[in-house]
Amino acid sequence: MSAPLRIALAGLGTVGAGVIRLLETNGELIAQRAGREIQVTAVCARDRSKDRGIDLSPYAWEDDMTALAARDDVDVVVELVGGSDGPALALARNALNGGKHLVTANKAMIAHHGMELASVAEAGNAALKFEAAVAGGIPVIKGLGEGAAANAIDRLYGILNGTCNYILSQMESTGADFGDVLKDAQELGYAEADPTFDIEGVDAAHKLAILASIAFGTKLDFGAVDISGITKIRAADIAQADALGYVIRLLGTADVDTGSGEKRLLQRVQPYLVSKEHPLAAVDGPTNAVVLECNFAGRLLFEGAGAGDGPTASAVVADIVDIARGNFGAPFSLPAGALQPAAPADPGNRLSRFYMRFVVADRLGVLAEITAAMRDAGVSIESMIQHGHPEEGGDVLVAIVSHEGPESGVSAALDLLDGSPSLSEAPLVMRLLG
Amino acid sequence: MSAPLRIALAGLGTVGAGVIRLLETNGELIAQRAGREIQVTAVCARDRSKDRGIDLSPYAWEDDMTALAARDDVDVVVELVGGSDGPALALARNALNGGKHLVTANKAMIAHHGMELASVAEAGNAALKFEAAVAGGIPVIKGLGEGAAANAIDRLYGILNGTCNYILSQMESTGADFGDVLKDAQELGYAEADPTFDIEGVDAAHKLAILASIAFGTKLDFGAVDISGITKIRAADIAQADALGYVIRLLGTADVDTGSGEKRLLQRVQPYLVSKEHPLAAVDGPTNAVVLECNFAGRLLFEGAGAGDGPTASAVVADIVDIARGNFGAPFSLPAGALQPAAPADPGNRLSRFYMRFVVADRLGVLAEITAAMRDAGVSIESMIQHGHPEEGGDVLVAIVSHEGPESGVSAALDLLDGSPSLSEAPLVMRLLG
Repeated sequence: MSAPLRIALAGLGTVGAGVIRLLETNGELIAQRAGREIQVTAVCARDRSKDRGIDLSPYAWEDDMTALAARDDVDVVVELVGGSDGPALALARNALNGGKHLVTANKAMIAHHGMELASVAEAGNAALKFEAAVAGGIPVIKGLGEGAAANAIDRLYGILNGTCNYILSQMESTGADFGDVLKDAQELGYAEADPTFDIEGVDAAHKLAILASIAFGTKLDFGAVDISGITKIRAADIAQADALGYVIRLLGTADVDTGSGEKRLLQRVQPYLVSKEHPLAAVDGPTNAVVLECNFAGRLLFEGAGAGDGPTASAVVADIVDIARGNFGAPFSLPAGALQPAAPADPGNRLSRFYMRFVVADRLGVLAEITAAMRDAGVSIESMIQHGHPEEGGDVLVAIVSHEGPESGVSAALDLLDGSPSLSEAPLVMRLLG
Repeated sequence: MSAPLRIALAGLGTVGAGVIRLLETNGELIAQRAGREIQVTAVCARDRSKDRGIDLSPYAWEDDMTALAARDDVDVVVELVGGSDGPALALARNALNGGKHLVTANKAMIAHHGMELASVAEAGNAALKFEAAVAGGIPVIKGLGEGAAANAIDRLYGILNGTCNYILSQMESTGADFGDVLKDAQELGYAEADPTFDIEGVDAAHKLAILASIAFGTKLDFGAVDISGITKIRAADIAQADALGYVIRLLGTADVDTGSGEKRLLQRVQPYLVSKEHPLAAVDGPTNAVVLECNFAGRLLFEGAGAGDGPTASAVVADIVDIARGNFGAPFSLPAGALQPAAPADPGNRLSRFYMRFVVADRLGVLAEITAAMRDAGVSIESMIQHGHPEEGGDVLVAIVSHEGPESGVSAALDLLDGSPSLSEAPLVMRLLG
């Protein structure tokens, strides 16, 4: 058996402690599989005295995180601190510049600085691995970059944020409104005290941009992701979707558009109405799932726990095992220099069916105004339902499902209605999947 | 870029032709990802003149398959001939003994000779890869051996045979009986002229034994798989399952039992009643899906096309890309010498709910006889339904669902009924999942 692979661990929150617990529990098995022992030599966290339920005495302690990258007894730095910049980024740069391998669960850092870090890693023949950054314990980066390596990827999409999926599933099963479910989710630990990154879709967008770069061989471009969250979804939308045979899921979607003669990329995070017949409709609670549409393998689906200390630690250690086995190459499958820039695609000519929900004032002619706008923009209405009774107070909702048509039509219809005193708030628009 | 990786292809049926088409279509992309060109140099098949829709002129032709393994211009032999022994095995042995890498889609050969071939491959530092042998285009061997490498696997189970799943899905959606659906499946190409290996569960058992060896670090032991097929399932069983909230799926299941103090393995291929709430219930048609229950990652699910030229070629070429990148180790994750023998576990004390269906004679006291046997064996009945009216002719079916109890109880009840003139044929027993 080869010499042990020596690990420094930065960050001892739930995931960091999970990695130590995993290596303690499965260490012998992992050493057999990796062909060498995985040995944690040094650790660093904010508070040395905090009780984490694990014995830290076998490991050297560093107060200064970047010192981990300078230690002679470290082959791999595992960064579990989080944050796109700051100490995490400094540590990552130091580690890779010093020729050490880096494993991270930090989706924000990879989404913002993945191209730079990949170049540094490749230049030094070091590994940069981040399976845990996308979809928790699901080995989807491996599935995409290695398992599906023989394929051109036509499209990828999936449920990439467990918090949103938990909230939407709970709204579905309880009939409660967004705010109430969010509060429960926070109390249960499924949502953070500041849930903005999750519920506004930013976290899912980080993950989507990472997957898209690997899938399409394009430069990672987080800024190009068109992002909508789930905060405007009401219990009435969930009920309406249900009546139509759909559930609502926040999806990240990415595909390549070559219609303009050049390779353009459409990356979006948006709530969808997903047909109950589609496998993603059955993905409940904090589970994640990713679908790859491949030109030879067809549709591949990967599903599992999207977060949590155990699943995330599983992905971190899988990366470490790959490094121990010498199984690593370019972090984004192609060498960083070979990744192509791709301008954002214009979705205007994309065909879809649409769900459009309006909150309307109780006044004569509102429906006529909305339907006229649809007609004038060429949007063909498949069904229209009005919810709520004005005499009972509260909002009156009008939900429209369109026949298949281009997105540009829906945009034009909404432009016609923009500023209309008939509408009490901005309309909510969601595409239908399946 | 490194020198091309040179491939010899044995077998030009649908999968072999698919590999050539894939390499022609995606060759440039694959060369970028692999860091080197994948170059087919020589091919061999039974009939040189057959029109396969592909141009074979760029490749050297060998009439003698084993000559492929002796060529100097070949680094990887791809075996797509099939059959557990005979020419395929001779070619595999020749290739690996000659220090060449071997990629194969041949589940029967790996199930029967995987241990021997792995030892030869490891001794010569050659790759032996067989992603395409299990679950078609789904990268489940990679997901298990690499993606889930940090985990002890508690249990694995899945839909491993597309033909059976297609037949069962069709019986479900059409209400037709087994024989009629099989005939249609044969006409549509979803079932072979001789469908025995598929419908009797042997093909699924080949795949299960391969997965179990990798998951549990045990010597591959195909002979220990307890196999039942789907030939005895009637339309009435499907209807009865549906009424209970279940669908019927042929599952391969494997887990480790340490109750006896030593590591024992339970491997089975059997039809199950799968709750409609379970993700596997939604897996329709020729799709495959595998679930891994991991001690840290939790439940991982991999789903996709279980057969077909495109998906199988995708898995074959993914293996070739791994070899091109130098990403390969022990074929069964642990070195062949480290895999442990594991005796078959006794399922008698396993708890489950059971579906038991009896074809009974039209005579007084039949139900009393069956229920007395259940009582005497300690099997607690949850529900019992009698199908069919004797006066209309045809069989009378009695279906019983038990409360959760040990398998030994059900076996004892069936022993009590064995040989009873009340039963027109052997009872059909299926476990309930979910």
